[in-house]
Amino acid sequence: MLRWLTAGESHGPALVATVEGLPAGVEVTTADIGAALARRRLGYGRGARQKFEQDEVEILGGVRLGATLGSPVAIRIGNTEWPKWRTVMSPDPVPADAYAASDDVNAEKEIARNRPLTRPRPGHADLVGMQKYGFEDARPVLERASARETAARVALGAVAAALLEQAYGIRLVSHTVAIGTAGVADDAPLPGPDDVAALDADPVRTLDADGSAAMVAEVDAARKDGDTLGGVVEVVAHGVPPGLGSHVHWDRRLDSRLAAALMGIQAIKGVEVGDGFRTAARRGSAAHDEMDRGADGVIRRATDRAGGTEGGMSVGGVLRVRAAMKPISTVPRALRTVDVASDEPATAIHQRSDVCAVPAAGVVAEAMVALVLAEACLEKFGGDSVAETARNHRAYLAAVPTTMRTWED
Amino acid sequence: MLRWLTAGESHGPALVATVEGLPAGVEVTTADIGAALARRRLGYGRGARQKFEQDEVEILGGVRLGATLGSPVAIRIGNTEWPKWRTVMSPDPVPADAYAASDDVNAEKEIARNRPLTRPRPGHADLVGMQKYGFEDARPVLERASARETAARVALGAVAAALLEQAYGIRLVSHTVAIGTAGVADDAPLPGPDDVAALDADPVRTLDADGSAAMVAEVDAARKDGDTLGGVVEVVAHGVPPGLGSHVHWDRRLDSRLAAALMGIQAIKGVEVGDGFRTAARRGSAAHDEMDRGADGVIRRATDRAGGTEGGMSVGGVLRVRAAMKPISTVPRALRTVDVASDEPATAIHQRSDVCAVPAAGVVAEAMVALVLAEACLEKFGGDSVAETARNHRAYLAAVPTTMRTWED
Amino acid sequence: MLRWLTAGESHGPALVATVEGLPAGVEVTTADIGAALARRRLGYGRGARQKFEQDEVEILGGVRLGATLGSPVAIRIGNTEWPKWRTVMSPDPVPADAYAASDDVNAEKEIARNRPLTRPRPGHADLVGMQKYGFEDARPVLERASARETAARVALGAVAAALLEQAYGIRLVSHTVAIGTAGVADDAPLPGPDDVAALDADPVRTLDADGSAAMVAEVDAARKDGDTLGGVVEVVAHGVPPGLGSHVHWDRRLDSRLAAALMGIQAIKGVEVGDGFRTAARRGSAAHDEMDRGADGVIRRATDRAGGTEGGMSVGGVLRVRAAMKPISTVPRALRTVDVASDEPATAIHQRSDVCAVPAAGVVAEAMVALVLAEACLEKFGGDSVAETARNHRAYLAAVPTTMRTWED
Amino acid sequence: MLRWLTAGESHGPALVATVEGLPAGVEVTTADIGAALARRRLGYGRGARQKFEQDEVEILGGVRLGATLGSPVAIRIGNTEWPKWRTVMSPDPVPADAYAASDDVNAEKEIARNRPLTRPRPGHADLVGMQKYGFEDARPVLERASARETAARVALGAVAAALLEQAYGIRLVSHTVAIGTAGVADDAPLPGPDDVAALDADPVRTLDADGSAAMVAEVDAARKDGDTLGGVVEVVAHGVPPGLGSHVHWDRRLDSRLAAALMGIQAIKGVEVGDGFRTAARRGSAAHDEMDRGADGVIRRATDRAGGTEGGMSVGGVLRVRAAMKPISTVPRALRTVDVASDEPATAIHQRSDVCAVPAAGVVAEAMVALVLAEACLEKFGGDSVAETARNHRAYLAAVPTTMRTWED
Repeated sequence: MLRWLTAGESHGPALVATVEGLPAGVEVTTADIGAALARRRLGYGRGARQKFEQDEVEILGGVRLGATLGSPVAIRIGNTEWPKWRTVMSPDPVPADAYAASDDVNAEKEIARNRPLTRPRPGHADLVGMQKYGFEDARPVLERASARETAARVALGAVAAALLEQAYGIRLVSHTVAIGTAGVADDAPLPGPDDVAALDADPVRTLDADGSAAMVAEVDAARKDGDTLGGVVEVVAHGVPPGLGSHVHWDRRLDSRLAAALMGIQAIKGVEVGDGFRTAARRGSAAHDEMDRGADGVIRRATDRAGGTEGGMSVGGVLRVRAAMKPISTVPRALRTVDVASDEPATAIHQRSDVCAVPAAGVVAEAMVALVLAEACLEKFGGDSVAETARNHRAYLAAVPTTMRTWED
Repeated sequence: MLRWLTAGESHGPALVATVEGLPAGVEVTTADIGAALARRRLGYGRGARQKFEQDEVEILGGVRLGATLGSPVAIRIGNTEWPKWRTVMSPDPVPADAYAASDDVNAEKEIARNRPLTRPRPGHADLVGMQKYGFEDARPVLERASARETAARVALGAVAAALLEQAYGIRLVSHTVAIGTAGVADDAPLPGPDDVAALDADPVRTLDADGSAAMVAEVDAARKDGDTLGGVVEVVAHGVPPGLGSHVHWDRRLDSRLAAALMGIQAIKGVEVGDGFRTAARRGSAAHDEMDRGADGVIRRATDRAGGTEGGMSVGGVLRVRAAMKPISTVPRALRTVDVASDEPATAIHQRSDVCAVPAAGVVAEAMVALVLAEACLEKFGGDSVAETARNHRAYLAAVPTTMRTWED
Repeated sequence: MLRWLTAGESHGPALVATVEGLPAGVEVTTADIGAALARRRLGYGRGARQKFEQDEVEILGGVRLGATLGSPVAIRIGNTEWPKWRTVMSPDPVPADAYAASDDVNAEKEIARNRPLTRPRPGHADLVGMQKYGFEDARPVLERASARETAARVALGAVAAALLEQAYGIRLVSHTVAIGTAGVADDAPLPGPDDVAALDADPVRTLDADGSAAMVAEVDAARKDGDTLGGVVEVVAHGVPPGLGSHVHWDRRLDSRLAAALMGIQAIKGVEVGDGFRTAARRGSAAHDEMDRGADGVIRRATDRAGGTEGGMSVGGVLRVRAAMKPISTVPRALRTVDVASDEPATAIHQRSDVCAVPAAGVVAEAMVALVLAEACLEKFGGDSVAETARNHRAYLAAVPTTMRTWED
Repeated sequence: MLRWLTAGESHGPALVATVEGLPAGVEVTTADIGAALARRRLGYGRGARQKFEQDEVEILGGVRLGATLGSPVAIRIGNTEWPKWRTVMSPDPVPADAYAASDDVNAEKEIARNRPLTRPRPGHADLVGMQKYGFEDARPVLERASARETAARVALGAVAAALLEQAYGIRLVSHTVAIGTAGVADDAPLPGPDDVAALDADPVRTLDADGSAAMVAEVDAARKDGDTLGGVVEVVAHGVPPGLGSHVHWDRRLDSRLAAALMGIQAIKGVEVGDGFRTAARRGSAAHDEMDRGADGVIRRATDRAGGTEGGMSVGGVLRVRAAMKPISTVPRALRTVDVASDEPATAIHQRSDVCAVPAAGVVAEAMVALVLAEACLEKFGGDSVAETARNHRAYLAAVPTTMRTWED
């Protein structure tokens, strides 16, 4: 069982991410986590905050001399903007006059820090968060609902990805499939595990040059119109063993867990495994992945429509999932809303100026998939050290009868 | 915390469904559960099994004199075909000669019960199930991977739905949105809670007459071609309170839980909340649900694109989710496969003759959504009796300031 | 993750036990489970019910031809007394006149079945159960609070014990340490795994002849006085590998889980690991288990005070835990109580005539320990079949450096 | 569902505690948590470390302006000794020469920081931790197994206690019942919620003057002999509502959860609810708490033997649990052990010089009970703000029929 919790507010002193249940011996460093966090700030269409904010990473527990200890791993991601927010977001009570005086910086772009936010923004947690938690303004809600929290997930995902690669040879990659109405070609090749650097170098994180240009143009057009965009990202895991997840109970199904993980990312409204909704429109004879035995005796699927799962289990090899992200809710051309502190009509305030966060969402989705796969692997292979879980993984593959092999040695 | 487990094999003596964590006082009877199970057998395009199989429902625990006791509710769903399978699926060991003699009935349609199934069917759990669990044939896998198991979920869903209606006034309905390439009009009205009977009376469970005819024609065409179909179903919950789920942690998000529940249904490959993937192609100014305050002071959303969640919480009112089902994997025009017991190429055997199970999948999806909402309500409102949880629900709504009301009294 | 739920009321049609997460290939039969249930009815001092009740065992899922399938295992334990209770405990509503007429059998010993139980019995769940769940009488509470439910745990424990022995060579035994003020000698030898039959043959389940006689006499004296007795039982697991549980988080500690499992048994009020409370009175120099390396290089502990855990982990070899059971709450010489339907003082009614259930509690405790160890083993060793998890277990032991070996090969 | 994780090593940079699932509006400050941590350092018999170590508390998330936000609460407890350990416990790899040079401080009392610990200490996690996690020395194990980790629990317990008092009026207190063979009188009065300061002022945290003197003498004697001591602590919760926990499933039982929480504390080997093991030696007529209705109509129990639970539920009022702590395993008069890096016999090293940590264990036990009760209350009463959960709690009590009242208004 892999358990993990994230904590921290968007403008608080830090995010904290803790994961419990990792084996000992996973090699990971502060720099590895920092590199993962830097990838989360990538992508054409981001606003100023991604530039001036740095993620100060500090490993507080669970790692010694570059390797995990088997104990919970805790990571602190400091907020470099904290000094500006020290009063308004103070954990402890502050004097009223200090609070009143804290309306100071960046007033043009950011809302006054010390004012109650009483105009809930459509598409955000604001209004329902106030209703649910009994708040009179949206500040306490938006601080946690913000996508800033995904940095904590990416940090944990980096640790999970290290386990996956070191123990099982699983490597993940993510890319952008569409932004708004622009996207990659249907027959664009799937990125491989060595394509990460090339993807990260592209402004929208795709290998498809035409698609990239189209998506950049889409962002430019939206920005010009004071509008925002969503899109679709895909995560591809390579080297997945067969048999992660299970058909025996709904919540053991790997696709169920992947769906939860992806839909649990801020702004995600749709999830697909493999061809997903497109498969639903096909006939059965053209929807499944037929099997052939090669001259080497290995069973291979002729196609990859299923995305690498059958019966709720990984079939082995490539796993492929997609997530649909809605456009950024904080639309520069402000949306119509109400003021819960008055009867006046209002327009929603906005705190940032991103047009599109889809490329970064791929990095977050990749982290979530890494966490799901890490848990599924530990469930299947057990083990309290990388050596032990890796040994169990190898022995499992070796024990599959040769007539059932779906992989080359 | 609502916990539930299902057990039982497709051709075993019975399915068993147990749910733990329901309050006392939910009114439910054997007949209610039987009626829900009958709905699961609905739909144009089903094969013979749905007709000759009956579900023998027996409540074994947790309900007395028509109301739950607060203790775990256990439901047994007997398999009326069990006498034919008594030997091959016997829990206890059977003599070899008795086993050998059990190849008897329905040999044309069904595979011989007592033969090892060594030709894994594409799209099924067969091959990876054998790899994972160390089986030499697929019988032990397919028996549990079969969609027969969803009957257990529907039984539990009926209990959950009773709680939702009796304690909170939440009522669910599901309908078919598409079968293959045919479907309902984009602007077809959303079914209301009183439309269940009308939907169930339609051959494909839609209120859209043209869509119904088109989908029936699609099924007929596929059947003629020896093919199968998938499609898309939608579940709509009415009367949902604001604030189910939460923005504070990914796995508390209502949409994350809904996605897991829907993707955890056999054959589901995609999930959407509200407009899902379509939203990803829109611009922000046309993707969110703007808010207005009515003359009566109530805040209303101008549109319903989000499907009833913002920030991982129900916004209150209508909740709307979709699931994409792949075509039935057992294609009459058999798919290419291998034989794991020999080197010969093979085609996949098939055990049933359904063309399309999409209408029934809506009923299963409805049950899963009911279970998710029941858990989310109990989490928010607590309580050990219907009276207590209902009282807490009412008090919560009453305590929301009038300037934040999103519902009429 | 091993998940399990029990359901069913004491006088309902059946108990149902479901366990999810077992590997495939555990050999278990209906007879094995029946034998375990028969052991639960053992012991001097039991009342009539244990004699006339039989447990009708039926495996409903998860087992085929004598071995588990990897799917959830469901077991139904029929209540042979059900015909007498069919009306009063009917899941579905019954006509008022049929209900009124159902006050029929065993009126002397048993309370009238159809009367509201409004005099809560001290030591029982009655009063607080009514408060919590909003019942006006205690029937719905006592039906589930009854120790009858432990039959479901014993059934699951039999399956867990089969896994433990077949995959890891772990064997469990339980015995009675004390009944009332009588008990076994402090230096009585610990029962070994082959002593189960001898223990079960003893009237109070001990190997200590003097202790047995003293405990029997204690029961006789209590019975004569119209009183009841509690006592202490001990569960001993042999062949436990080192490293189950963990020191890294409180709820991974094996002793924490064992304590929860034992304290979760009806009537248990105290739990000890190893010497428990006695250790708290010792000095450190006489409280721990010093280590020596034998001529064969194996490290051995000089004593066994800790009961087989250090730092929340099994140290390997023998694990030993105790549970303290309070006297049966239904005291023949009835206790003082109130009537919640009137202002009159009252004495508590009683539904059974056992003097002492301690010997049976050992069997229940053994089942709970088996379930905890099974989960801990699956967590450490993973695996989806007995072959796989056993292989991982062997490889783990083989990989411990010879200078750290605490067991002989 | 209340989830919490702690992280951090004994000599690492910090401990981190995160709790998820608290409602909004719990008032808590850095100072409150610091005060709780100071109580954990109390008690006669502690060594030098408690004096020179300070706990630097920092709230990193979930609290704003003195009140919780409903989001996860994360607390960092800095280690003031970290500069001395910065090299040996560095999360990131360090150059070999820097590591070699880090053997510097306190060499007399503490083991050299940079040496492998290959002589496992009896009673510690050392040996089995190395076996389980595949370590060649015990440093990585003892760093997490150390009782230092309990500071993280105490921090979370302070937040839980704030919720309990503010929402439900529940107040906790803990005291020492025995140290070694000395202890308080059997008929010593139970501490009330206002006795905390008086208890904390006593050297061993008892109100019983004679008992205090005897326990202090016991500590002095043990220290003189180079030995260590364990003992027994008791936690008493006042103002508990009836109906926390449940009889319906073993793991919902409040006593099961309390037992897990207490046995999950380092060095605890026994747990009792109420009179625990003493009850097992009584007869039924003298073991339960008879009920009377007072002139005011309120039902009262004549005694408190059960410790405030019946049928796995709190009966309301006072809850009372005990934990037995083994003597400190690091015995100054060193215990016999082996060296896993050689064949030589050895004696165990020791890193600290406490004689007895029992008084502090009471504070830790109090924190664990607070966390269990907080979870049980949130489960029963639901609610996302203190106002909401408190309202539900009040309404529950108000709805209990007057003839079932067990409390005065």
